[in-house]
Parts: sequence; C-alpha cells; structure tokens
Amino acid sequence: MAPRKLCMIPGPIEFHEDVLSAMATPATSHVDPLFVPVFGESIEMVREVVQTKVAQPFITSGSGTLGWDMMVNLLEAGDEVLVITTGYFGDHFAECLEVYGAKITFIRTEPGATATTEQIAEALAKTKFKMVTVTHVDTSTGVLSDIKSVAAQVKAASPETLVVVDGVCSVGSEEIKFDDWKLDIVITGSQKGLGVPPGLSIVIASQYALDVYKNRKSPVPVYYSNWNKWLPIMNAYEARKPAYFATPAVQLVYALHTSLKLILSQPIETRFKKHAAVAADFRQFVRGLGLKTVAQSEQGAANGMTAVWLPEGVEVAPLVSGLAGKGIQIAGGILQGLAGKYFRIGHMGISVMEDDRQHIQKVKEALSSSLAELGYKA
Amino acid sequence: MAPRKLCMIPGPIEFHEDVLSAMATPATSHVDPLFVPVFGESIEMVREVVQTKVAQPFITSGSGTLGWDMMVNLLEAGDEVLVITTGYFGDHFAECLEVYGAKITFIRTEPGATATTEQIAEALAKTKFKMVTVTHVDTSTGVLSDIKSVAAQVKAASPETLVVVDGVCSVGSEEIKFDDWKLDIVITGSQKGLGVPPGLSIVIASQYALDVYKNRKSPVPVYYSNWNKWLPIMNAYEARKPAYFATPAVQLVYALHTSLKLILSQPIETRFKKHAAVAADFRQFVRGLGLKTVAQSEQGAANGMTAVWLPEGVEVAPLVSGLAGKGIQIAGGILQGLAGKYFRIGHMGISVMEDDRQHIQKVKEALSSSLAELGYKA
Repeated sequence: MAPRKLCMIPGPIEFHEDVLSAMATPATSHVDPLFVPVFGESIEMVREVVQTKVAQPFITSGSGTLGWDMMVNLLEAGDEVLVITTGYFGDHFAECLEVYGAKITFIRTEPGATATTEQIAEALAKTKFKMVTVTHVDTSTGVLSDIKSVAAQVKAASPETLVVVDGVCSVGSEEIKFDDWKLDIVITGSQKGLGVPPGLSIVIASQYALDVYKNRKSPVPVYYSNWNKWLPIMNAYEARKPAYFATPAVQLVYALHTSLKLILSQPIETRFKKHAAVAADFRQFVRGLGLKTVAQSEQGAANGMTAVWLPEGVEVAPLVSGLAGKGIQIAGGILQGLAGKYFRIGHMGISVMEDDRQHIQKVKEALSSSLAELGYKA
Repeated sequence: MAPRKLCMIPGPIEFHEDVLSAMATPATSHVDPLFVPVFGESIEMVREVVQTKVAQPFITSGSGTLGWDMMVNLLEAGDEVLVITTGYFGDHFAECLEVYGAKITFIRTEPGATATTEQIAEALAKTKFKMVTVTHVDTSTGVLSDIKSVAAQVKAASPETLVVVDGVCSVGSEEIKFDDWKLDIVITGSQKGLGVPPGLSIVIASQYALDVYKNRKSPVPVYYSNWNKWLPIMNAYEARKPAYFATPAVQLVYALHTSLKLILSQPIETRFKKHAAVAADFRQFVRGLGLKTVAQSEQGAANGMTAVWLPEGVEVAPLVSGLAGKGIQIAGGILQGLAGKYFRIGHMGISVMEDDRQHIQKVKEALSSSLAELGYKA
C-alpha cells in the first residue's frame, strides 16, 4: 500500500496529533456529564474564532454543505437573493438556495477577480434583497472577498438584508469580526481552518438572523436542517444540559473541542497574521517560479490556500502525481472548463502555525522539483 | 475528572480498538486513491450486513435522523403513509414525513406491544399507501417488530407500497434479509449495531425504491438530502472513482470500513444468533431479578437492547447514578409520561460478540448491586 501523503489540499488539512487522539475517544454517551460541557464549550469557542459575543453557533453532524442547506430557515418562496460568486462554490450555493425558492441575482466575476463595489451597488439599487451571499474564500479559485466591505455596503443600502458568508474555506484562517462587521450568517465545516476531520457542519447566526427565522410566515419546509429542532439543542448544551434531537457526532465534537483549544491558546489575531504572512510568502514563491496565481490581486488572494495557473506545457495530472510521488497531496482545479489549467494548494492550520513541521517548505521543494521534472524552467 | 464509563446504553455502543484507531487516521483527501476503495468497499460491505445483492446504500455525513429526512426523495405532497409505531422513534419519524407532505395513518401500540396483523390488515384495507414505515427496534422501548411478516403482509395486499424500515437500532444486531423479505428501505446510523462512532447516516434503497424516486412527478424539494446529488457519488466511489458533492467524513468512513471488516469476518448469521442468545439470557436475568421488560413478548423483544420497568420504590436517576458509580453507563426511559418508569441497556457489537470483555457480566453485577443498594430485593 502506498504511504500516506501530507495532505496539502485546501481541506481536509493536516490535523494535530491531539485532535486525532480526540477522534479516538472511546464510546461516550451523548448525554454523559463528561461530554455535555465539551459540547457546550465548543459552542462558546466557535464564537471566539469568529469574534462574536452574541451570535448563535449551530454545530451539527454533516458536511459543510449542510450549512448551505440550513439557509432554508431564513428563506421563503420567492425571496430575492443576491449571490456574489467567485467560483464553483458560489455557484453551487446558489443552486441550493434555488431549491428553497430563492430568486437569484448573480454577480459573477471572471476567474480570479472579486466583485467590485460598482457591481454590488448596481445590484442593490435594482432589487430589495432578502439575503446577499458572498463566498469569503472560494476553494475553487483561492479568491478572497472583502466581506467587511461587502457587509458594510449591503447594510448601508438595506439594513434589513441578511449578509450571509460562506466561510467554509475561511473560518480559522481568515480574520472574521462577526459582530463588528455586522454579519448575519457564517457557514463553515470542520475540516479546513478549524483543523478537525470532516463531518461537522458549523453555522453561526446573528440575533437578527434568528429574528428573521422566528418571524417567518411559512413553516420551515425541511426536517433535518430545521432550526426549530437544533436551536433548543444548542441552547441546552451551552447551558450544560443534555438534550436530544439527533445523536451528535461525539468523537468529532471532542476533536473540535481539542482543536479550538489549540487555536485559542494564542490571540486569534496572531493566527490570522501568521496565515497572511505564510500566504504572502507562498505567493511570492509562486511568482518566483514564474507562475501566476488565479487570484488577480494580493488583497483578493486567500490566506489559507493558493490556486496557481499551470505554465504552458505542464499538465495537471502529472504535476499532482509528481508531488504525490514526493509524499505531498495537492489538488487540481475544479472550475468548469478550466479544471485542467491550474492547481490548488492549502496552507492552513498546523501546516502554517507550526513551522517545525516544515510542511510549507516541503510543498515548495516538491513543487519546484516536480515542475523541473516535467520540463518546466522558471 | 470522572473516569470514563462503559457505554452500555442502546447506542452509541462500545467501539473496538481498531475502529477507534481508524478514527484517528491522519488527514487524507476525500479523493485520495488510498481512500476511494475504502469508501467503495464500505458500500459493498453494508450490502452484506443487510443481505442484499442489488440494493443501493447511501453513506453520508450526518446523524441517523438524516436517514428519515432522505425519505423526502420518495414522497410527494399528499402521499398516504402508514406509520407502525412502537415508541418515540416511530412517532418522530412520522413527524419528519409530515414535514414533507405525507398524510399519516398511525398504528400505535401500547408500550411494549407490537402491531398485530389484524391492525395492519385493517389499515391496508382502508387506504392505498405510498409507503408503510415500521421501526425494526424502537430504541425507546426495545420492542422488536417482525419486519419480515409486515413486509410480506404489505406486499401481498399492495405490491406498489414501499416498505420502509427504521433500522437505526437493528442493523448489525438483528437479522435483516433485505432482498428475501422484499424490503424497500432500511435506514440506520453508524453508532449502534455497526459499531462506529456517531456521524454517518446509512440508507439502503431497493431498486424499486430508486424507480419510485426516479419517476416522481415533482422535483425533490430539498438540497442536502437529495439523492440526485448523492446517487452519482455512491456510484462513483463504488466504481473506485472519486466524485464530489460534499466532503465525506473520511475518518468515520475509515472507521466504518474497519468495523464492517470485523463484522463480516464471520458469517453474519453467527452474529445475529449470538445477539439473540445474549439478549435472551439478559431478559432471563432481568426476570430473575423479579423485573419485567417493557417488551411484552420474547419474540417481540429486541436482541440488541432491553428496556426494563423499574420496580416499585426505585427511581431512575439514582439507579443510573448507582451504575455510573460502578463504571457503567445505562440510559433512563424516554417515552413521554413514562420516562421515569423504566431504564434501558444496550447489548450490541463487541459487548456481545467478544465474551472476554465481560461487558454483559459487568452490567449484570452492577445492576444487581445498584438495585440492592436502593433497597430493592429480588
């Protein structure tokens, strides 16, 4: 059997040994007094990562995609939604919202670009939106959207409009000031900046978003994603009381608790600055190889991952294989029509925060030598 | 901190050390050639556990409850559904189906009883049902329904009616012959008879159920639970090709693979017979204590758990605490109005199959002495 590779895709990321040990926690009842505070504290620590005092986290068993689904709690048939998409994930989020009756207006950017304030202003002037969604980092392109400025622009034009951030590839690796920036929803999964194996969906909702949900006119038309079911559960565990709707993924919650403790063992700004520094250095390295990032600007480039256009004459499959042969797993592209034209590398979590592991150095070396082996000269 | 207790509730159950090690599998991409066959083989092994050659398993990230939600793929508004409920979980399954527009007819039994053929015949004579649901083992009561005979009765009266089995507390601990018994759906979670930590939803669908889904008139009104999304993923992984809709819970799938290998390392009949023998012995032990099981008959009693009425003068909280003090976690009741009147014990998986662990013996001893400490004399 082939040896395990260092997982340097944009999620799942490499996991800390303590997090993996927590995954192997022996059987524990979901209502055990040992587990209840672990769940409760995890809810509280999620708040700290996105810098909110008052928003409501939902930690549920499911993929990050389940977070998209939960937007059904806020939507009613015919609601106007502006989707600012910077890649594959924005497009698919819209597809999810449409299933729940949303009427979608798109702001689409060319690959690598972010939406302009003019585009957003134009859309806001035309339509009163129930919700504006923005992908903080689109994993397909490595484009970073300025959610602070998007939220400010939306709330200035229309304070009632919900600002929904897809933070699947940003929570834990990008600065988010949930309260200060007046966000309403941040959606994420466990397996990226939070450094936990996949299997938890995490959604954080502002009190305003909860009000919109509570005052909706039609019943929430789903069962598993229904906040009527989950909100009492979150409230109970945070009050250190067990409650039951569906059996929580106990071991994943232990792992989340462990990773959040590690993340919050230093100021959260330190974490974001380190991610930004490593990302800037990595992009510099990419340019040094004579390559271009998909993200078209420095401020529009993610701090937890980088997508890079392939140089002429180099194909994605042999490059990915070349790195795999050196023990490094990277990812190809996934943008429709362009999937073969670029590759993607994750730089999040312990790979960034713990220099001694030399993960980033190993990626750089493997990338340089694999490109050389494929005949590319910088 | 209190020491960990042996988890003898009716799920999550105790997990094998190899399964826990698999939970700690280091980061692996969901499209890694190492992982793809693990997922593919898991799909195939799930078939073996429920003894089907042709049905389609769906293994997704979520709680067992997500399996209920997936019934939305088969339902259209106004569909008539007969729900045979033997406890809390049957009632809540109906609540889920109602959200998706089902018109529910209930067959309710008194606590501990199973539905009679007369009740079922009467219901089938009155209404043409799209679907009949039956909880194989209701975790709230430990009642075992004879799904073979229910399915035969339903299909004899109405071959088009879908037979849907909630097998959350039965798959892996109760005999299920999916094909022979002409079942259409079996729903389960990872954390009970399959011996894997919670976080995976597993649904097995007959080819007939897939036909009903494919020929539905209205679109499936949900996103995350939508088989349009999941069926191509399951087909791809089974064909040993990666595919993406939502990031699978890689570590949980490794754990499932490990547990299924252990389960299938001996003939599956051996497993079911052992569960039946241990359960019969445990009920005998309960009677020896002068106590009554909630399940009213031997053939209507689960083989993976037992619910027991408390004797006069013994309350549930001190009994659960008493056992906890002896290192054994058991569960109280959850039937509305009766929750304080009985307790529940799980006997599934390694606790049953591996005598050397002496789990059942420890439960018996702790139960006897805790009852004695509370002043109860057999």
